[in-house]
Amino acid sequence: MIAFASLPAARDKLLFTPGPLTTSLFVKQAMLHDAGSWHFEFNAVVNEIRERLLKLAGVSRAGGYECILLQGSGTFGVEAVFLTCVPPNGKVCVVANGAYGERMARMLQHAKIDHMVLRTGEDVPNDPAALEKALASDSAITHVAAVHCETTTGILNPINELGAITKKHQRLFIVDAMSSFGAVPIDFEEAAIDYLIASANKCIEGVPGFSFVICRRAVLLACEGWARSLSLDLLGQWKGFEKNGQFRYTPPTHSLLAFRQALDELDGEGGVRARGARYERNHRVLVEGMKKLGFRSYLSPDVQSYIITSFRYPSDPQFDFDTFYRSLSDKGFIIYPGKISQADTFRIGSIGRLFESDIRALLAAVGQTAEEMELNL
Amino acid sequence: MIAFASLPAARDKLLFTPGPLTTSLFVKQAMLHDAGSWHFEFNAVVNEIRERLLKLAGVSRAGGYECILLQGSGTFGVEAVFLTCVPPNGKVCVVANGAYGERMARMLQHAKIDHMVLRTGEDVPNDPAALEKALASDSAITHVAAVHCETTTGILNPINELGAITKKHQRLFIVDAMSSFGAVPIDFEEAAIDYLIASANKCIEGVPGFSFVICRRAVLLACEGWARSLSLDLLGQWKGFEKNGQFRYTPPTHSLLAFRQALDELDGEGGVRARGARYERNHRVLVEGMKKLGFRSYLSPDVQSYIITSFRYPSDPQFDFDTFYRSLSDKGFIIYPGKISQADTFRIGSIGRLFESDIRALLAAVGQTAEEMELNL
Repeated sequence: MIAFASLPAARDKLLFTPGPLTTSLFVKQAMLHDAGSWHFEFNAVVNEIRERLLKLAGVSRAGGYECILLQGSGTFGVEAVFLTCVPPNGKVCVVANGAYGERMARMLQHAKIDHMVLRTGEDVPNDPAALEKALASDSAITHVAAVHCETTTGILNPINELGAITKKHQRLFIVDAMSSFGAVPIDFEEAAIDYLIASANKCIEGVPGFSFVICRRAVLLACEGWARSLSLDLLGQWKGFEKNGQFRYTPPTHSLLAFRQALDELDGEGGVRARGARYERNHRVLVEGMKKLGFRSYLSPDVQSYIITSFRYPSDPQFDFDTFYRSLSDKGFIIYPGKISQADTFRIGSIGRLFESDIRALLAAVGQTAEEMELNL
Repeated sequence: MIAFASLPAARDKLLFTPGPLTTSLFVKQAMLHDAGSWHFEFNAVVNEIRERLLKLAGVSRAGGYECILLQGSGTFGVEAVFLTCVPPNGKVCVVANGAYGERMARMLQHAKIDHMVLRTGEDVPNDPAALEKALASDSAITHVAAVHCETTTGILNPINELGAITKKHQRLFIVDAMSSFGAVPIDFEEAAIDYLIASANKCIEGVPGFSFVICRRAVLLACEGWARSLSLDLLGQWKGFEKNGQFRYTPPTHSLLAFRQALDELDGEGGVRARGARYERNHRVLVEGMKKLGFRSYLSPDVQSYIITSFRYPSDPQFDFDTFYRSLSDKGFIIYPGKISQADTFRIGSIGRLFESDIRALLAAVGQTAEEMELNL
């Protein structure tokens, strides 16, 4: 994307990452405008985005749900839920099998919010039975927090089961659906979700700049007075939108204009299921191709999402990730380093404005690079 | 900027606001690229921006200063300083004469950080004598926080005097220079600034998406273990940059690419003094023109910045701000509502990619609108 060589490239390198992603040119072109953040025409865009996200989630204001946009990355959105919505004497049970679950625990530590973590291995989905036991035995727990698709590995967690148990025990359920929302169908009622957090630059294929929270209005309104931060006060942010349609503090206006275009393109593609089908095909072609080349996936296929895939480093001692990465970058393909603590892996995303032909081009480049590195796969 | 009429406009409406601003087309075009947030080429951009901001501030790493970029609006940056850098038993003295000073107090309330507020009228600069007295009598105060240019009114506060007093009493000085940095010269040594916060979409004429903090390394490093939030942990953010050149959490990649271009254009214009001179001329032409039309400025000229100007509502009962605002918007000019509690005002900004000709075009539109509204000015 940036010309370091003397001759600039005609196209940006393709991003096989969990976001920021490769987006459509029209999405980026929507940013060629300066909008007034307090102006009524811009407020209409903000309002439209909030309404369309609810619709995309299959819920509505009439049905008791609200959508709140928040400046910053997805992490800011997750932390805003904790800092606003857990009461002073609340306790959060985090179910974790990767870096994003652990990050939730770190947020709670920073805020000095009581919490416990139910861990499974990074290659094992969250354990509903362990949650059942924890909720039955610890009445102090007020909230359960889970990560739908753990991009640490690409594992998909059983939010329907976790949500049903949480609801049965009359606790509140927080779902980080950062990398799944917009491409993996989510049923808010079935998963009994009270708060879902996702971000602009994932499966909706917008550019980074804000996250959003979709939540039950009644549980949000009950949080009055609990916010531990002003910027991350989710209820305050909602009140701001309700008062005058505006963000309380400067919004990323260009990201929002891009996001509206991204929503149009998601509709044009056929919605969540159609987008999911494209990503699933990308993933299948990727995994089959990598297998043929001799790379092994980290996860068992039955728990693997079609969002991002972790591959084990080849056993050949010749393999050096940095060389591999740079060689692919030179060919125009940007992959993603691993984040797993228990194994040496790298990751390849299937999301963003990528098609089967892009995956096949990547696979050809991986094959060529393996040859250049003389890897024994 | 958004086509609501059947025929889209050729140009965006001009923004006479304190930001997001009208930016150059090249700044926006720099966003027509998708960058990998962990990719080495993008890390180089992030590093370049951090270095250039230090240079722009007239300080350096060798001289003991650091620059930290943070996702979100400027408010997030200010709150990050409080949540990270005030010790558990610390106390902040806020000197306030407008909404942004009051916002600091609200941040401290949310975080349950001990604080006091030294207020002056919204048309009166911060009072150094009152600060002197407070610091002499209250040894619990660890930090002083001020707003350089209070965009509530456009007043410029005496940060050099406040800083000298703060330093004399061996406390730390936090300056919100959101709307002044890049156009009003600031001497870090003379003002004895420990932490300065500004944002991408103000006088550097970038687009919104992040704020930045320029601070003394030694005082930042002393904050270990104090952060009350993970996302807003300024020291954690700095450590992330030091570790691998990356943002800890997804950065607004497009805003950062735009910002690099904006820095190039600031250099091209001749730096802080040249930009300040353009804004000053914009401001002077604006105030003279508005005066001729019969509008009165809110502030006394000797305390007025050239960033943004508050005008009193005309006394004519025919005047309706909403009608006035919409009529100017229809003509392609977006002004800003007032925020002053003690008087009815509206605001007009002089910053962004605006020239004298734009100010004169605005003045003509204001005159025409006043005629259409049959205002007796």
